[in-house]
Amino acid sequence: MAFEITTNFIEKLVDFVNNGNESEIKNLFLKVHYADIAEVLEEVSFDEAIYIIKLLDSEKTSEILMELDEDIREKILKNLSAKEIAEEVEEMDSDDAADIIGELSEERQERVISALEDDELAADIKELLSYEEDSAGSLMAKELVKVYETWTVAGCLRKIRAQAKEVTRVHSIYVVNKEEKLVGRLSLKDLIVAKNEQKISEIYIDKVDSVNVNEEDDEVAKIMAKYDLEAIPVVDNNNVLLGRITIDDIVDVLKEEADKDYQLAAGLTQDVDSDDSIIELTKARLPWLFLGLIGGIGAFLIMEGFDEAFKGEAFVLFFFTPLIAAMAGNVGVQSSAIIVQGLANDDVKGSINSRLIKEMLLAALNGLVLAVFLFIFIWVFKGDLKTALAISVSLVIVIIVAGLIGTFVPLFLNKRGIDPAIATGPFITTSNDIFGILIYFMIARLILGI
Amino acid sequence: MAFEITTNFIEKLVDFVNNGNESEIKNLFLKVHYADIAEVLEEVSFDEAIYIIKLLDSEKTSEILMELDEDIREKILKNLSAKEIAEEVEEMDSDDAADIIGELSEERQERVISALEDDELAADIKELLSYEEDSAGSLMAKELVKVYETWTVAGCLRKIRAQAKEVTRVHSIYVVNKEEKLVGRLSLKDLIVAKNEQKISEIYIDKVDSVNVNEEDDEVAKIMAKYDLEAIPVVDNNNVLLGRITIDDIVDVLKEEADKDYQLAAGLTQDVDSDDSIIELTKARLPWLFLGLIGGIGAFLIMEGFDEAFKGEAFVLFFFTPLIAAMAGNVGVQSSAIIVQGLANDDVKGSINSRLIKEMLLAALNGLVLAVFLFIFIWVFKGDLKTALAISVSLVIVIIVAGLIGTFVPLFLNKRGIDPAIATGPFITTSNDIFGILIYFMIARLILGI
Repeated sequence: MAFEITTNFIEKLVDFVNNGNESEIKNLFLKVHYADIAEVLEEVSFDEAIYIIKLLDSEKTSEILMELDEDIREKILKNLSAKEIAEEVEEMDSDDAADIIGELSEERQERVISALEDDELAADIKELLSYEEDSAGSLMAKELVKVYETWTVAGCLRKIRAQAKEVTRVHSIYVVNKEEKLVGRLSLKDLIVAKNEQKISEIYIDKVDSVNVNEEDDEVAKIMAKYDLEAIPVVDNNNVLLGRITIDDIVDVLKEEADKDYQLAAGLTQDVDSDDSIIELTKARLPWLFLGLIGGIGAFLIMEGFDEAFKGEAFVLFFFTPLIAAMAGNVGVQSSAIIVQGLANDDVKGSINSRLIKEMLLAALNGLVLAVFLFIFIWVFKGDLKTALAISVSLVIVIIVAGLIGTFVPLFLNKRGIDPAIATGPFITTSNDIFGILIYFMIARLILGI
Repeated sequence: MAFEITTNFIEKLVDFVNNGNESEIKNLFLKVHYADIAEVLEEVSFDEAIYIIKLLDSEKTSEILMELDEDIREKILKNLSAKEIAEEVEEMDSDDAADIIGELSEERQERVISALEDDELAADIKELLSYEEDSAGSLMAKELVKVYETWTVAGCLRKIRAQAKEVTRVHSIYVVNKEEKLVGRLSLKDLIVAKNEQKISEIYIDKVDSVNVNEEDDEVAKIMAKYDLEAIPVVDNNNVLLGRITIDDIVDVLKEEADKDYQLAAGLTQDVDSDDSIIELTKARLPWLFLGLIGGIGAFLIMEGFDEAFKGEAFVLFFFTPLIAAMAGNVGVQSSAIIVQGLANDDVKGSINSRLIKEMLLAALNGLVLAVFLFIFIWVFKGDLKTALAISVSLVIVIIVAGLIGTFVPLFLNKRGIDPAIATGPFITTSNDIFGILIYFMIARLILGI
């Protein structure tokens, strides 16, 4: 458990690589988990990583490849021949194999597949590649333990001994009828506890959850999380058993979804991490910043428009625009985030109207508390009751409108089938900045009678 | 799979409840999964839910209780006697049982535990309650399948048949020596494939990952995700096997972590969902809004300070403060979000300095692109080259400083052992607003020579 990458370890490794000391390198990695080896390879130079990959057994390197960062894996795969990739792939489960091959160019995909010695795996990979990205089909593995309802327990155990060698983890044994349609499931435990001469049809559990091969992956994740499933069989429209999805793949889906939502909320348009190049990071960051710039120019134009009206006494109003913009932005993000998260968890029930009324009350309450504080500050600091009143009243209304926009936009997008998560972060902040400032000046003008 | 809550279903159910038609209610729920029943109970009135809970078998209701929203569960538990809760708890695995009992007041905890008929479960629950919240110990279940290395495969299968009835899912069989210390693991598959007369010591796998009972839960989640584990044994400081944690608990931990980070980024101080009361939501939202208000007042004071200097010609500078504040806030959130996510994924390597240099280059590049655009806009729109230059140059510097603050603060907090996620959202936005506006006016004054 306690493997940690030390500089000492890396230095030793690089030393062995430079001296071509193959047996020492193998020795060094003997007791290291493949996930740790992957991390080590991300620390050494690219040429060193390639050398090590080619040196280690494909049983080990196939697992390492799956754990590597996608960018690094891509570069490594470019340096391996179709034959070498095929050797790695043959050690993988079909889902991982299809993922790796799916990352190659179409032309290389074909060459790798035809270099595979295992025809069944080749057929499985072709099938898996044919499913839509982000569908249950693209997530599933073909490996599973399948028994026919007509078999006996003893016969079953014999067959399972053979099948199980192919399957890394046996979660459930799936029971099919003679048309290959899924009819039920069994656990290994049930099988061990049963008597040898019993028929499978007598002991299987006929309540078996399954998903259609075209189901979306985040829907599958929701179902598995909700029903606490560790594996779920995948069927076609005729209920014919095609494969199974295991919980470790779902953990990845959940993590990706959460990361994506978080990044959208932070104003990043694509999946980036801190080690990406400056160009990649700029691509992810600049679009939202540009939106912010446009918003800022909008705010400038609004303020210019009110320039004449507020010159002189009421000039102090301009100094509160950052406050108004910040409050509008914050309230908008808060309310949209709650809705986006509620939608993701299937928690948002009831009509849009009732949501909006609740948000209005909530924003009014928050706004009132903040406005009283701001009113007292301006009154004491500037000694001008009317200006203090104008700014404070505007603040309450700006907060209410911001809350309503933050609530309405994600609900609206969701109804239209658009991912509501894009309505968080800069999108809401920017539109609320502009609306907020516009409303602020309009209300203030009304109150001050200018 | 396809269960959906229809108004028709709810109406029928409420009708049966009102008429006390017990057998019809049981019938209605006969083929419904407990996770779905939990959702149904959240749709009916509280009294109806209590009635249904008391009616259904505790085998079913114990599972339903675990799936209910915490607020609703709390209310239901208040309406059950210690004896009734004990009956529910006896049907649960020890980890769920401890979670439920942990939600009760200390006095009720004792009464429920002493009402338990199963002494072993009572002892297990007491042990589990004794571990720190958010530790591996608080997550683990005591149920597991354990064999001694001296046993034979045949003897093992016999014992497992007995033990397995207690354990919902058998992931791994843990092998211990006579001092109860964890020495290895076996899968059911290995056992089925082995010969009956073989000794466990000959066939077990001695590489077994484990976590210490005091390890933090998010650390356990990271380990299980990294090594693709579906269950992990928990040991004490002497490597004595205490329990096991399964992946479904980890899915919950990951989800909670992601939700928490997302909410912090959105400016919500505590775990709220859209169905919470207005008071609860206000408690979560108002503190950050108040921070925003203080920031806005800070911006006002800065602008007041520059009032004299910029009156007259350069007056237009005030109209760009929302733009400056928005850009500073956006850049700060982007850079902090990338760092926070990188830290969560253990992806951030290298020194703080190299991070800051990279962010500086990145922010300079982004800032330059945006500043050129803004420069052209102001030049064309206002026809004043010098003002356009002053504002654009300031923008670049503001963006660089905002990027550096966004990068530095989470790294600094993390070094201090504080959750860096609090450095996203309103915290960064507000501080960057103030710094941004201050720097903006200072630079502009310098360039304009006022």
